Amino acid sequence: MLLHIDSSADTAADSVTRDLTDRFVTEWRTRHPAAEVCRRDLAADPVAPLTAAYPALGRRVERAGLLPPEQVPALLDGPAEAREWALTLPLLTELRSAHTVLLGVPMYNFSVPALLKAWIDRVAFPGAFTDPDTGESLLRDTRVVVVMARGGGYGPGTPRAGHDFQTPYLRAWLTALGVRPAHLALVAAELTRVDVLPALAGLAKAAAASHAAARETVTSLAAR
Amino acid sequence: MLLHIDSSADTAADSVTRDLTDRFVTEWRTRHPAAEVCRRDLAADPVAPLTAAYPALGRRVERAGLLPPEQVPALLDGPAEAREWALTLPLLTELRSAHTVLLGVPMYNFSVPALLKAWIDRVAFPGAFTDPDTGESLLRDTRVVVVMARGGGYGPGTPRAGHDFQTPYLRAWLTALGVRPAHLALVAAELTRVDVLPALAGLAKAAAASHAAARETVTSLAAR
Repeated sequence: MLLHIDSSADTAADSVTRDLTDRFVTEWRTRHPAAEVCRRDLAADPVAPLTAAYPALGRRVERAGLLPPEQVPALLDGPAEAREWALTLPLLTELRSAHTVLLGVPMYNFSVPALLKAWIDRVAFPGAFTDPDTGESLLRDTRVVVVMARGGGYGPGTPRAGHDFQTPYLRAWLTALGVRPAHLALVAAELTRVDVLPALAGLAKAAAASHAAARETVTSLAAR
Repeated sequence: MLLHIDSSADTAADSVTRDLTDRFVTEWRTRHPAAEVCRRDLAADPVAPLTAAYPALGRRVERAGLLPPEQVPALLDGPAEAREWALTLPLLTELRSAHTVLLGVPMYNFSVPALLKAWIDRVAFPGAFTDPDTGESLLRDTRVVVVMARGGGYGPGTPRAGHDFQTPYLRAWLTALGVRPAHLALVAAELTRVDVLPALAGLAKAAAASHAAARETVTSLAAR
């Protein structure tokens, strides 16, 4: 199963990441015509913000020794925790079931969008991705493709070098969750706001080249 | 005016950051008995997720040349954009009016909570913090105190060194918004999940010392 997650607040017509994830899915479907695609559009259907019952339940599960999701219902204390769990379990189940995860992630304020962080904060429930028998990560064979866009340039030597809290962050979080570096691909289109930001004047060609290169990479990643 | 923002999903009794921001506010009130405190609890009253109308409006404002908030209503196109602006303007106004900003920020998944990122993604509206006459930041005289907690240790030499996307991120974002480094203080209590995480066994004293040191720093920052 391909889990396709988009987190841009923009509609498809304006969003570079949605253009790129659509391209991936189209190519992927031609290679896996029988495979299921599970779509989660975090803008159309935002993940509910955490309430106090979520960390309360999480701590109880951690103290019990990182139980698998099947054993969490027995630990639920009251309707607030039951509600949090009902909001969380479908996200866990999707991620645990995915063979490939496709994340569309624009940069907002130097980091990932709040829409994506809400998914991250909810899906990363204690024990959910730990094999109860071996202690290994259940995501150790999961392939993750992260498709990013950022309005400016963040490479070495640019004025905003050191302000990229998108790429290294997602790499660190996904790796800590157990995704193997060899199974993780991150691709970014840069300078996407060249038509809006005066600071990027004259960079239209570089922006177009970056977008075109990202499209090519995404297509080849989907064909793998 | 002191703008007091909390972003922990935990209730006051469990939250280290809420304990620390409460301490700051109590001390601050004794020094500024006549000053206003504006409270924004992002867990009790979450910031609404962005919809497509927000970036559409933002781009129009940027193309018009970073207009101040007073001139944005004239650019609104339709009820969806009017709704986004109505959700955004109170946050802008609070931040522009604050003399001191107090942010309570636990680390969630190596970064800031989604609850805080939702505020960041909405408040950082184009032009809102630029003086239309001088082009300077309206936050150049604003003092910002960031009070953080993180479950583990993230210092040099720890297994999670390089996984702190909380402190450097907030420093980069606030500085880019125009807060002067000399007006910015960040303080963190570490190892706060020592009672839950087996990996932190034996570190109870270090955790208590870190929390106590953060309390002292917060008290002295409030007295300044």
